[in-house]
Amino acid sequence: MSDSAESAEERLIARYFRPLATPAGAFGLLDDAAVVTPPPGCDLVLKTDGVIAGVHFFPDDPPDGIGRKALRMNLSDLAAKGAKPLGFLLALALPRGTEEAWLSALARGLGEDARHYGCPLLGGDTDRTPGPASLSIAAFGAVPHGKMVQRSTAKPGDHVVVTGTIGDAALGVRLRRDPSLAERWKLTAPMAAHLAQRYLLPQPRNALAAAVLQHASAAIDVSDGFAGDLGKLCRASALAAEIDVARVPLSQAARAAVAAEPALIETALTGGDDYEIVATIPPERLAAFRAAAGAAGVAVSEIGRIEAGEGARFRHEGKVLAFARPSYSHF
Amino acid sequence: MSDSAESAEERLIARYFRPLATPAGAFGLLDDAAVVTPPPGCDLVLKTDGVIAGVHFFPDDPPDGIGRKALRMNLSDLAAKGAKPLGFLLALALPRGTEEAWLSALARGLGEDARHYGCPLLGGDTDRTPGPASLSIAAFGAVPHGKMVQRSTAKPGDHVVVTGTIGDAALGVRLRRDPSLAERWKLTAPMAAHLAQRYLLPQPRNALAAAVLQHASAAIDVSDGFAGDLGKLCRASALAAEIDVARVPLSQAARAAVAAEPALIETALTGGDDYEIVATIPPERLAAFRAAAGAAGVAVSEIGRIEAGEGARFRHEGKVLAFARPSYSHF
Repeated sequence: MSDSAESAEERLIARYFRPLATPAGAFGLLDDAAVVTPPPGCDLVLKTDGVIAGVHFFPDDPPDGIGRKALRMNLSDLAAKGAKPLGFLLALALPRGTEEAWLSALARGLGEDARHYGCPLLGGDTDRTPGPASLSIAAFGAVPHGKMVQRSTAKPGDHVVVTGTIGDAALGVRLRRDPSLAERWKLTAPMAAHLAQRYLLPQPRNALAAAVLQHASAAIDVSDGFAGDLGKLCRASALAAEIDVARVPLSQAARAAVAAEPALIETALTGGDDYEIVATIPPERLAAFRAAAGAAGVAVSEIGRIEAGEGARFRHEGKVLAFARPSYSHF
Repeated sequence: MSDSAESAEERLIARYFRPLATPAGAFGLLDDAAVVTPPPGCDLVLKTDGVIAGVHFFPDDPPDGIGRKALRMNLSDLAAKGAKPLGFLLALALPRGTEEAWLSALARGLGEDARHYGCPLLGGDTDRTPGPASLSIAAFGAVPHGKMVQRSTAKPGDHVVVTGTIGDAALGVRLRRDPSLAERWKLTAPMAAHLAQRYLLPQPRNALAAAVLQHASAAIDVSDGFAGDLGKLCRASALAAEIDVARVPLSQAARAAVAAEPALIETALTGGDDYEIVATIPPERLAAFRAAAGAAGVAVSEIGRIEAGEGARFRHEGKVLAFARPSYSHF
């Protein structure tokens, strides 16, 4: 017998994922590996991050959003490093009984984001698992040689800036687990929906990557918790940060929740899933960085300074906040 | 309070995985992303593959071998594409209660292989999972621009060659599930151990990558099953292959098993987990390829030819074999 039949695995990949594999170097997902020609004079920036059902998303979350979230988590890191996306690899583990409609919606969401962010699918791996569904992504970007924006290169006197708003997703996931909190937090329905949506669908700041590359002395993606992530930047740079909590940008919904229950400021500052960028900007660069951010359509807030010392300090109403757990840890 | 404390996750990464992250561009796993400077004039070859406990390995397999196997599966694809390894990203999902000794052994095995194959750890992601342990790896290699060896470029008249021996791992995993088969298959203890070990620990043919790059018209890594993988190469090239089963290289142990139970030839040819390379070599290149393989210390066998038509045909004792399932499919 000649073996000309495609396996069920090949058919599944062909139907749902081949349409996403647009670059010539993806070979329509029909080869062992993909090939990428790096832009001349550029380094490749490499990142892997993923999501597991029941850990990073709720099993009944909309599947198109699950694919988007997994990709956007990685895109956010590329943005913080000043890198322009080139593409991604997807390792998918699916429990038996995964419905084709679920897979189709997941692939559709991924495909729309791949186009929107200019980050096409290059290759992948699909397995059955006895465990929960999971997506692991490895994403690649390009920066001019030697120019990746690191965590360890902040300088005393730099301004600390952050994109977007902080804490929405951390409040959103608490609302998702206990919708009755909306009343306790005195949220309008649109406010509750805003927080829920910020958890479901990160908005990575890739539009700001070029400005970060040009102006930031150091940067980190805010994903595990703002206080903890800024703490990592401070440790890597062997410096301190002095943050004015009143200037940390909160959405209208987060402000309402914190007004109703002041202890929520800790949730906002440490809860994670923000997918914003915190960057350090030398004073002489701040005006140009603000202008570039404005041109890119990304809100940025100046919230403090880098100085000699150790750790990130958060000053709030005349006191320094003490956090029980400055960022999310799986362990 | 200043946030200068490392999280448990950071400590775990620091203890077990930082020692593996030797390149400067891995930043000691202390940044959001890694950076790689591609060798001048080279393309990057990208591959992702992984293992899940209970699917690709037995939960009680030696943990150092689990890490090695996950990396070697990816190295084998790089070898088949003619690529020289540059490094890898590791996404690790661990159930609660994973013992540090298990993790330590896994990291040790990975680290030894990373050094041996010149494929260092560049970055990673570590999560708790409610499911089984899993490792997903994305590996990167370099080939001269435009030279990645593809599946789709075989030519009529090319010789079909294969490295090492075929079928050992497929027989080994059956023995692992049912040790009493050793007696039925008339295996000596060393033969049974050989098959078991070939399942546990692939021997990727990275030593042959330069010869594949120089001489092969097309190639594919044999991982899902020899018949099915050769079938994929034929489909991609829109050609047929005529294989003489008597020339397909079998180990002494596999030959003994097939002699005792002739139907096992199908298991050997379709069972997968071989991590050998099947390549097509133009006739005028065959002698040079054989010489290069000899110099690299990799056994290669000529087993058939590429011709016009469709699919891979396996001639055995005057008949064409019909396979119920030419390769492993998760779906």
